[in-house]
Amino acid sequence: MYERLERIYSINIIGLKRSTIRELLKFTQKPDIISFAGGLPSPESFPIEEIADIAKDVVLSYGKWALQYGPTEGDPRLKEEIIKMMKKDGQDVKQENIMITTASQQGLDLVGRCFINPHNPIIVGKPTYVGAISAFKSYLSDFVGIELDNDGMSIESLRKTLQSMRLQANLPKFIYIIPDFQNPSGITMSLERRKEILKLAKEYQIMIIEDTPYRQLRYVGKSVPSLYELDNGEGYIISLHTFSKILFPGLRLGWIVASKEVIEKFVIAKQAMDLCTPPFTQSIAYEFCKRGLMDKHIKKIVNLYRKKREVMLKAMDEFMPKHPEVRWTKPDGGLFLWMTLPEYFDVDKMFYEAIDEKVAYVTGTAFYPDCGGKNNFRINFSFPTEDKIVEGIERLSKVIKKNLKD
Amino acid sequence: MYERLERIYSINIIGLKRSTIRELLKFTQKPDIISFAGGLPSPESFPIEEIADIAKDVVLSYGKWALQYGPTEGDPRLKEEIIKMMKKDGQDVKQENIMITTASQQGLDLVGRCFINPHNPIIVGKPTYVGAISAFKSYLSDFVGIELDNDGMSIESLRKTLQSMRLQANLPKFIYIIPDFQNPSGITMSLERRKEILKLAKEYQIMIIEDTPYRQLRYVGKSVPSLYELDNGEGYIISLHTFSKILFPGLRLGWIVASKEVIEKFVIAKQAMDLCTPPFTQSIAYEFCKRGLMDKHIKKIVNLYRKKREVMLKAMDEFMPKHPEVRWTKPDGGLFLWMTLPEYFDVDKMFYEAIDEKVAYVTGTAFYPDCGGKNNFRINFSFPTEDKIVEGIERLSKVIKKNLKD
Repeated sequence: MYERLERIYSINIIGLKRSTIRELLKFTQKPDIISFAGGLPSPESFPIEEIADIAKDVVLSYGKWALQYGPTEGDPRLKEEIIKMMKKDGQDVKQENIMITTASQQGLDLVGRCFINPHNPIIVGKPTYVGAISAFKSYLSDFVGIELDNDGMSIESLRKTLQSMRLQANLPKFIYIIPDFQNPSGITMSLERRKEILKLAKEYQIMIIEDTPYRQLRYVGKSVPSLYELDNGEGYIISLHTFSKILFPGLRLGWIVASKEVIEKFVIAKQAMDLCTPPFTQSIAYEFCKRGLMDKHIKKIVNLYRKKREVMLKAMDEFMPKHPEVRWTKPDGGLFLWMTLPEYFDVDKMFYEAIDEKVAYVTGTAFYPDCGGKNNFRINFSFPTEDKIVEGIERLSKVIKKNLKD
Repeated sequence: MYERLERIYSINIIGLKRSTIRELLKFTQKPDIISFAGGLPSPESFPIEEIADIAKDVVLSYGKWALQYGPTEGDPRLKEEIIKMMKKDGQDVKQENIMITTASQQGLDLVGRCFINPHNPIIVGKPTYVGAISAFKSYLSDFVGIELDNDGMSIESLRKTLQSMRLQANLPKFIYIIPDFQNPSGITMSLERRKEILKLAKEYQIMIIEDTPYRQLRYVGKSVPSLYELDNGEGYIISLHTFSKILFPGLRLGWIVASKEVIEKFVIAKQAMDLCTPPFTQSIAYEFCKRGLMDKHIKKIVNLYRKKREVMLKAMDEFMPKHPEVRWTKPDGGLFLWMTLPEYFDVDKMFYEAIDEKVAYVTGTAFYPDCGGKNNFRINFSFPTEDKIVEGIERLSKVIKKNLKD
């Protein structure tokens, strides 16, 4: 038996653990458990009939192209549809600014690959997306966390942190931001805050990674201009997008928008990673857009999730203990609510009590690169049915009440 | 405009160049050029009707599953089909030994991610697969090349190299081998050589990466047991497989076979890279196997390519100059012939002359991590039609004759 194994792994992988969420999901897959843990879109929303037809049409009409290797940059026809879609959102993008990715997790991996050397500091929200933490950690980044307030990443804290990092000649490689309905907090960054942060980024000459998987899933209020739009082509923004939430995740399709120069580097990196994203899945997304189905489909999802969000917020009001330190966010969009409990709570321990009560969440600690989140958890409202949402929140409130000391 | 860009790229990407092959492909896509450059399977071989039906069936019968996120390890049903397929080839594999990948380029990327620290030496063939060079280079490996003889990697040279590396306390992380119809050389490693190299690997406690995309595409002679089979479960082999050559590339589907412990690390790494390979594309491959279409399809491809190989070899005999230093391999399988010319040839320069003659190859230099290959090129026989093969070889022989000095 080969004996040196433990001694030959790379430093990239040694520090990396299995994704907490994916581990938790195992507990939550028993049929009698109501799971608020995943970030899964609702399968009710999948356009089954349309996709079945499109998949068949794509293979029959141009299978010789769709089943072959494709360009690393992505299918130019799909990029054209993306350009149109983004134009409606006020974002002005050219073919050369886009690369198709194997969903936006690959976007995060590419950002890590192309910008992070071991111990390079990067700035993230406290809390932030767990998938970004693992992607960047696998390139051995150092994380500098900035707390969030109601308008997004705290500007005072960010300013002070950058000042002190400059004094130490150790400026961050980039600031990682999820401006719309942040995962996990649900907070949307205000227009004012977006402008302030962009100004800071330009002052300090720092890139911003704008991760924006939920932007189209807004249920109340008015859309805020993206950081990419506000940057006005100055090249400070790399924005990550995905079809996982607006269409479905099973195609593993996303795209990156950035300056031509940065896209060029990403293309080189992607060639070494997987040569290209499947032309077949790209063709399906292209046909779905081209046949005018996307706008209608997004509307359908938004209506579905808006209702689910209302149901969850109502159930929270009804069942959760009235206590000044038991609070939750009321997001304008996205898929998640973020729960804050009194400081003495230990959500990791409480997770197993919740499982005993047949309900599951993601522990807040998963969303912090170091410590934090012991008294937080994230719950998802897009996946469970409305009945399950009510039932699950009732169960969850029982668990919390049991752990409340006053 | 953002100014610091050039200064903030990571060391991983700075040294990486656009894939030579992909750059050359641009030249070769003009319609009047006969291209022997790609490694593309023949679109004539794509089972269009069957895949169109399967794609539709998959979405209609279990779209809610196939269009959702899936397990990082891969679809267990597809793994079961892979187990059956490998059993017929004498390879005994369990579910826990397999991970599905976004084709075998991702397999190479995962090997790099999990095993290579900057400046770790790895051993490769001279020449070796260009995609492996870029994948490993992006983790900043040092390459140690071992020349090939008719039986594969030279055993004397490998032995001496390992001895001297041990003396320097700088043993390689692994030996990268393409034992069947090596890309680009077309050489198949003999059974004796496989046993000798495996013995050396065990003596020095070094992993072997067995990359085997063409194994099923044998046109003459008898299959040689894989290194994985010969290892007999001792854990020295990580083997990389793909559906790109036996089915088609457009699904971007492959798999890794390794010890349970190594697969576990790969799963963690893949979570950070792209979460999972599309359940949709995995379902299509699964249905194709389950419906008993795979064996028949491989037979069809083998017959198609056997014929093309014969046509190319015959055209080579007919048109190439009779000269003791103009030689080419006669591979028993795979997709490529490897050409060796007198040492004064410069294939990079000659490439443009070939393009002028409306014919293209891949320059040998692409297959060497450092120098070498100036008097070699690779030509592909799977993609062009038989007529084009004859015509293209005639054109190519003209270019060579023009450059011959005696």
